[in-house]
Amino acid sequence: MKILIVGTGAIGGFYAGQLRRAGADVAVLARGDYEKIKHDGINIESIWGDFNFHPRVVYGDAKDIKEKFDFVIVTTKVLPEISWLDLIAPALDSHSSIALIQNGIFIEKAVAEVFPQNHLVSVIAFIASERLASGLIKHDNDGKLTFGEYQNSNPQKTQKLIDLFAKAQVPCFSVNDIQFERWKKLVWNASFNPISVLAGALDTKKILDNPHLKNLVKNVMLEVALLAKAQGYDIPLEFIEKNINDTEARKVPSRSSMLIDFEAGRAMEVEAILGNAVRFAQKNKLQIPHMETLYALIFAM
Amino acid sequence: MKILIVGTGAIGGFYAGQLRRAGADVAVLARGDYEKIKHDGINIESIWGDFNFHPRVVYGDAKDIKEKFDFVIVTTKVLPEISWLDLIAPALDSHSSIALIQNGIFIEKAVAEVFPQNHLVSVIAFIASERLASGLIKHDNDGKLTFGEYQNSNPQKTQKLIDLFAKAQVPCFSVNDIQFERWKKLVWNASFNPISVLAGALDTKKILDNPHLKNLVKNVMLEVALLAKAQGYDIPLEFIEKNINDTEARKVPSRSSMLIDFEAGRAMEVEAILGNAVRFAQKNKLQIPHMETLYALIFAM
Repeated sequence: MKILIVGTGAIGGFYAGQLRRAGADVAVLARGDYEKIKHDGINIESIWGDFNFHPRVVYGDAKDIKEKFDFVIVTTKVLPEISWLDLIAPALDSHSSIALIQNGIFIEKAVAEVFPQNHLVSVIAFIASERLASGLIKHDNDGKLTFGEYQNSNPQKTQKLIDLFAKAQVPCFSVNDIQFERWKKLVWNASFNPISVLAGALDTKKILDNPHLKNLVKNVMLEVALLAKAQGYDIPLEFIEKNINDTEARKVPSRSSMLIDFEAGRAMEVEAILGNAVRFAQKNKLQIPHMETLYALIFAM
Repeated sequence: MKILIVGTGAIGGFYAGQLRRAGADVAVLARGDYEKIKHDGINIESIWGDFNFHPRVVYGDAKDIKEKFDFVIVTTKVLPEISWLDLIAPALDSHSSIALIQNGIFIEKAVAEVFPQNHLVSVIAFIASERLASGLIKHDNDGKLTFGEYQNSNPQKTQKLIDLFAKAQVPCFSVNDIQFERWKKLVWNASFNPISVLAGALDTKKILDNPHLKNLVKNVMLEVALLAKAQGYDIPLEFIEKNINDTEARKVPSRSSMLIDFEAGRAMEVEAILGNAVRFAQKNKLQIPHMETLYALIFAM
């Protein structure tokens, strides 16, 4: 099974490495990291063990891709300014599957519309990893992947990908309804991410040590539950409280992906994490004033 | 009439100068600005005309005050960490009046409790002025003062102070209920101040050019109106819309006092402007989620 990983950052670099460890045929589309990775491969500093690997081939530009892939795994950030739909087109034929390992809510729709004939899998990564430099990824915590069919369902093919990840000891789960999982992940993302940036570059411990911010985290989470409810998904209060307690119980406080991006001067996933949710609320006349406030502020940054 | 101005910043320095221009007997308590002002006086760069003045006496420490004053005008920022109540005690006898030219809501109570026998006047300044350096004040816009009796009412004495300001062409108004005026001023302060800091150091134009932030400004203003309503004060929608339109129509965009303080690394008036309002809401079980979000974020900064 020929696999192309689009993006060689904290997610793409890490999971490309896991697939390579499983012996898979892995190519990467690296863009900014091309020269470094072409030369030195990718270094992973992981709680699962450090390693270095070379993809079968490193592409620096989508235009150079002259082969078709069985699986194209997109790991880029979801940003309005990254038109990765154009990036993956050369790698696809009608038999190609697409997997999105990305953050946010309602992120699959645009892909499904552009590639209506392709098998599309929506994947959520639960991982704390960071791109320290070109071709250098640090993996601090978790690593779990949750898979769900989104379009032209083909669970047998998805299972082949899961088997490869599982061979590298990556914990993998399949669910019938990935949207529910996306809402549940949004509970954490829509709260800790913007608050960590707006309250002055705070890690999870500093947020939860402040009673005003802890209360704000909970209020945002309750608003996410309200939105999920409008789609028929029940996120109970216990889930929210456990989410906060688990974050509080982490031995090492973590910095959110938005904070990492903000401090590195990179674009943040504001639309995928907050903008899409705020627009969903407006469309459905739901009141989410805390999220709306966070969105307005972080959109302006 | 012997007057002591406590504070020689954007407000204290400016209004001390106006009283001096009116020929009043003005002493100042300068603290950090003491050496500079003692030597060079205070320089005002004002749209009303530049001038330099020397107070009759400059105090650098409240302990050095061995005289009593007819009016002690407090212009310090309202910060939990500034115990200016101790500062003014040496300047007061039972005949002394106290005037607070300060921002925020519910700020008079602590003073009234410590000096229950003194005449207490609550004053609101509508002014854009900035302390550029020690003893150097820039005055960009407005300058109006609104006076209201707060404790041991003595309008005749207050009028004497107003007459002095009026002599220097400072527009002055007296109102029966200063709390209503404080709520009305809070409409602007509770919205533009924290948003200007949290959205990434934005002036009024940049805030209002962003439709998300403009909407947030309005939502915060509506929440202030909700709080005022609970005290029996009606702030109509037209007032809020005019407030936004007038700010939008300013020829020169302005930077809020919180933003000026934040950029200078100084403490911001978070409690007087937001904290007191949030606590009032909690006590009265009123929902002000936008303000609550802003408060939690800016409190953490």
